[in-house]
Amino acid sequence: MDSAHSKILVNGYPTNHIFAFDRGLSYGHGLFETIRFECGEPLLWEAHLTRMKLGCERLAIPWQLEWNTKLLEEAQRLCGQTNAIVKIVVTSGTGGRGYRLPKYPQPLRIVSAHPLPSYPKSNSDEGIRVCTCRHRLSDQPQLAGIKHLNRLDQVLASAEWQGSTCQEGIMLDQSGHVVEGTRTNLFGVQQGCLITPSINRCGISGVMRDYLLSLAAQKNISVKEGVFGLDEFQQLPELFVCNSVLGIWPIRSWERKNYQVGDVTRSLQGLVQELPGA
Amino acid sequence: MDSAHSKILVNGYPTNHIFAFDRGLSYGHGLFETIRFECGEPLLWEAHLTRMKLGCERLAIPWQLEWNTKLLEEAQRLCGQTNAIVKIVVTSGTGGRGYRLPKYPQPLRIVSAHPLPSYPKSNSDEGIRVCTCRHRLSDQPQLAGIKHLNRLDQVLASAEWQGSTCQEGIMLDQSGHVVEGTRTNLFGVQQGCLITPSINRCGISGVMRDYLLSLAAQKNISVKEGVFGLDEFQQLPELFVCNSVLGIWPIRSWERKNYQVGDVTRSLQGLVQELPGA
Repeated sequence: MDSAHSKILVNGYPTNHIFAFDRGLSYGHGLFETIRFECGEPLLWEAHLTRMKLGCERLAIPWQLEWNTKLLEEAQRLCGQTNAIVKIVVTSGTGGRGYRLPKYPQPLRIVSAHPLPSYPKSNSDEGIRVCTCRHRLSDQPQLAGIKHLNRLDQVLASAEWQGSTCQEGIMLDQSGHVVEGTRTNLFGVQQGCLITPSINRCGISGVMRDYLLSLAAQKNISVKEGVFGLDEFQQLPELFVCNSVLGIWPIRSWERKNYQVGDVTRSLQGLVQELPGA
Repeated sequence: MDSAHSKILVNGYPTNHIFAFDRGLSYGHGLFETIRFECGEPLLWEAHLTRMKLGCERLAIPWQLEWNTKLLEEAQRLCGQTNAIVKIVVTSGTGGRGYRLPKYPQPLRIVSAHPLPSYPKSNSDEGIRVCTCRHRLSDQPQLAGIKHLNRLDQVLASAEWQGSTCQEGIMLDQSGHVVEGTRTNLFGVQQGCLITPSINRCGISGVMRDYLLSLAAQKNISVKEGVFGLDEFQQLPELFVCNSVLGIWPIRSWERKNYQVGDVTRSLQGLVQELPGA
């Protein structure tokens, strides 16, 4: 295997190129997952696969039977026994007349492995600073939840802030309700109850978000999913963001408000540490 | 030049491949134009270029000085003296940390030439049937107007109808107002006044739409741009769709309503025929 290509497989082949007419590029007609691997083992693999399958269904991209085995096989081939982030992209492939899918689509899969990002330990220990992005999420119930390739909202919002002043930007919907971070989901805690914005009209149904909601159910922690204004959410005494790569980061400041790392946040962090593979 | 690659240039090179980590694929961080060439001459070239420049500005993709000359040069190299459709895609290139642009982006350009699509002559002479798509456009003022690569709305809406029953699908916004076709803009005519939906919150500012609006100004045709409900728009006596590839197609039926091809539509069709290059 050519070493320059050793960390990426396109339809199983070691190449870092795709066809320029791929519908993933032309229209963003595809989905992606970013998965944490520890010592060659994926965290929450089934959850990532399930979300991708759901995304394919929503976007009419036929799920390929071979993906059930090849995606993991190829991810592990690239990772070896190391810690890594694996990115999987699937698209509807090339062809079709304009926006319309060809009669027999030939979907594309890209599996690539990347070093774990190195974040300061203080992000999870002491918490991070967040700011509110001016760029708001598109309102689109038909695309909410899935991790599709139409990510201009996140690109534009991420350009607004720098790592030196804060570590995540919080995004609002078109009406000004709080939804999520640019690459994380957002949670609050009040009187032992876990609170998180609905993602019915925009936002991503994060794999870590879902995992925390299932943990809450197991541990009899009550959950409130709903529509919250910015002020309302900022008033909560305990806040954190999460995703499946970085785990849970408490929020210690959000503009002029400061927060303590709370007990529920710490206890969830502990449970996430025990994830199989972690 | 390898004949298999003869109709596409990527950054000036004859290849039909791009880098799999291009931000155009990862996030749809890019723009495209589809331009009609007649006998090797582009129609409305400056308007296409201006929209693409505006799009780059909105998406923080640095416009490359060389694009001012190379895009046309390469398009004409691919077309020769023929009639063709040229598609230009520009993206922010590879690199960056997650959603964030690298400090020194290296944008990508793809220029490709394709045969003119062959539509029945009756589409422009007698008009087409249109239907209303169930899939609605995302509400996002920050992305409205420009022709970016986040096109899942159009992909999903185009999958709803077949060429045998209608020739274009009309899309509504999240509140149910009429906006545009899946690949066209929409116009109505009433008492000599040209009527078209606003594209402030969603929709594309079509090059042909803009051209017709400027023609109307020249010819003292009054224009009403606004927010219209589905029923309200369907009540107009004269309707048509347009884009820079197919020109103007009158609408002859929209679900249960039927329309005659009106005088204003015919006169605009005549003016579009006279476009330089056409």
